[in-house]
Amino acid sequence: MTIDELDTPCLLIDLDRLESNIATWQARVTAAGSTLRPHIKTHKSPLIARRQMEAGAVGITAAKLSEAEVFVDAGITDVFVAYPIMGPLKWRHAAALAQRCRLIVGVDSVVGARGLSAAAVAAGSRILVRVEIEAGLGRSGVTAERAAALCDEVGRLPGLELEGIFAYRSTFFPGAAQLSAAQAAADEGRMLVAIAEALRAAGHPITSVSAGSTPTALGAAAVPGVTEVRPGTYVFGDAMMATLGALRHDDIALSILCTVVSRPATDRATIDGGSKTFGGDIPPAMVGLPGYACAMRGDAWLERMSEEHGVVRLGPGTDPAPGARLAFAPIHVCTTVNLSDVLVGVRGDVVAQCFPVAARGKRE
Amino acid sequence: MTIDELDTPCLLIDLDRLESNIATWQARVTAAGSTLRPHIKTHKSPLIARRQMEAGAVGITAAKLSEAEVFVDAGITDVFVAYPIMGPLKWRHAAALAQRCRLIVGVDSVVGARGLSAAAVAAGSRILVRVEIEAGLGRSGVTAERAAALCDEVGRLPGLELEGIFAYRSTFFPGAAQLSAAQAAADEGRMLVAIAEALRAAGHPITSVSAGSTPTALGAAAVPGVTEVRPGTYVFGDAMMATLGALRHDDIALSILCTVVSRPATDRATIDGGSKTFGGDIPPAMVGLPGYACAMRGDAWLERMSEEHGVVRLGPGTDPAPGARLAFAPIHVCTTVNLSDVLVGVRGDVVAQCFPVAARGKRE
Repeated sequence: MTIDELDTPCLLIDLDRLESNIATWQARVTAAGSTLRPHIKTHKSPLIARRQMEAGAVGITAAKLSEAEVFVDAGITDVFVAYPIMGPLKWRHAAALAQRCRLIVGVDSVVGARGLSAAAVAAGSRILVRVEIEAGLGRSGVTAERAAALCDEVGRLPGLELEGIFAYRSTFFPGAAQLSAAQAAADEGRMLVAIAEALRAAGHPITSVSAGSTPTALGAAAVPGVTEVRPGTYVFGDAMMATLGALRHDDIALSILCTVVSRPATDRATIDGGSKTFGGDIPPAMVGLPGYACAMRGDAWLERMSEEHGVVRLGPGTDPAPGARLAFAPIHVCTTVNLSDVLVGVRGDVVAQCFPVAARGKRE
Repeated sequence: MTIDELDTPCLLIDLDRLESNIATWQARVTAAGSTLRPHIKTHKSPLIARRQMEAGAVGITAAKLSEAEVFVDAGITDVFVAYPIMGPLKWRHAAALAQRCRLIVGVDSVVGARGLSAAAVAAGSRILVRVEIEAGLGRSGVTAERAAALCDEVGRLPGLELEGIFAYRSTFFPGAAQLSAAQAAADEGRMLVAIAEALRAAGHPITSVSAGSTPTALGAAAVPGVTEVRPGTYVFGDAMMATLGALRHDDIALSILCTVVSRPATDRATIDGGSKTFGGDIPPAMVGLPGYACAMRGDAWLERMSEEHGVVRLGPGTDPAPGARLAFAPIHVCTTVNLSDVLVGVRGDVVAQCFPVAARGKRE
């Protein structure tokens, strides 16, 4: 089967690039003296997680318990849910999942720690805990000042075992100028290491110091004392990561194949993918890009979307007829993948493998 | 089962409001002298389409063939795919679907009409066609000047039957001031009726003149000569439709139940729903709203999202503890529904019925 036989819109994975990204990033993180625990929210596919594990990943990171469970069902045995687990249903869910894998979860409050402990005791489980450190996003995590008290609490609670600390620091801070990735990585890594050392001095068993997303992972991995980084997007790359310099445009492994359905003007084409296909959670202006997706070949940017229509601005020399097919790299690949049921792996124009997006929509 | 037993995030449907919206809008459209062909992209659920048909809808509108097919599979027999059908795979798909229902499709180009005709002839099908009229969005459709020539072409082609014309005119034009819904509705309706009359004078059999989305449907239905309107969002409503005045806040039938997972500040709560749950294709500023979703009760707006975190600005007197649950009305409900596998119908706090989002993700 070739690409021409695929209906559109359709998500394509360039397998050569996928394999190169997985191998290259694993080697870089290892060379920097850290370990790699990739965030699987980018691909949501156990088949790709398996490739990451085979390349040397120590386990996976997931955002939610239901997302993690899909990977445990598929045989992954070391899972970090990097999210505050909150509420009786989720505490029970975590306690059950911890009987099927080495489960580490995030905690950022006393109420969260106590609820988790009670559920673990009730189920006869042991849950590993990392305390989340607030790193500037203002969404979750505790300050350095409050970390010690929360570690004290976790240490006292039955059924829980304090394993480490973690943070997530975006290069995009709300209401602030964009940091360079190198600066954000160094800041995040050094802050976490300093907090870990203070906690250890107070007697807490901080084994893991976990930092870093794709823009910051390699910088954070190089900070002495950072034990683990959690990039996700590096497997596929996207237009945002390319503009940040985290990958090259030629490393981008995922593209969206679309059909031109209308030509409203000589410099515009309308394609059969809009926000229902591409997503659109990142405004292009926020990352200094001219659109929501860029053509893999030729000069064309997806400037405007409604749900099923995408309006593409065509550069000179790009003049697709109605019915022509164009492939685009999205601005933010994680959101795009979550809208799709399957990723189609290709070598050149030949369809080689399908990856079900098995954890799509799992947000509980 | 009660709401308390549902894991979060979870989409709730207030069944009393759903039933009221379906009945009220059908009655209003009928009273205005038009017919209602609801767009099912809002709910993507055959169970809800069935309720709309029972209330008096003449058929359904879908955006894509694969979306429409889910409803044909469920027994809906009159379907309009309001989208330019383009490319050999889709022409064949349309020809096959036309053997299972009364299928009407959009056409806005000669190449589209010819391809559709060839596929219909090859399959022995007859496909009804509506010519799409450009109404200011610059994405698809032909101008009034080109409509006659395209109708000539459709009329000559075997396997096709010209059935009418249609347009979609948003109240939000790119790069232009927002029109009032009443003005947009009147403009759209009168423009289409004038074009239909000119086409009839030239001998074309224009039976249907189809216009209108939720903000403009009732206004368009009242324009003499408009035979059909295609609102979708009216079944559930959302914060955008409430601010446009198309429905009241108290008519909003769909809400997203979330759990507070962290309290980063006294005036902020972090919930377990972000862009992966709510969507986020409509920037709040574009519609003059302070956030991506508003609390169904109390004073709280979802101001900022990452994929799994939502940061909520709390007004005075709203002070939810970690673990508390809050329900939110999204800014754009269609996008929200497409991210979910199921909608949970409730009466008060009791779970009464589940609606699988059977056409979720169908965009081919």
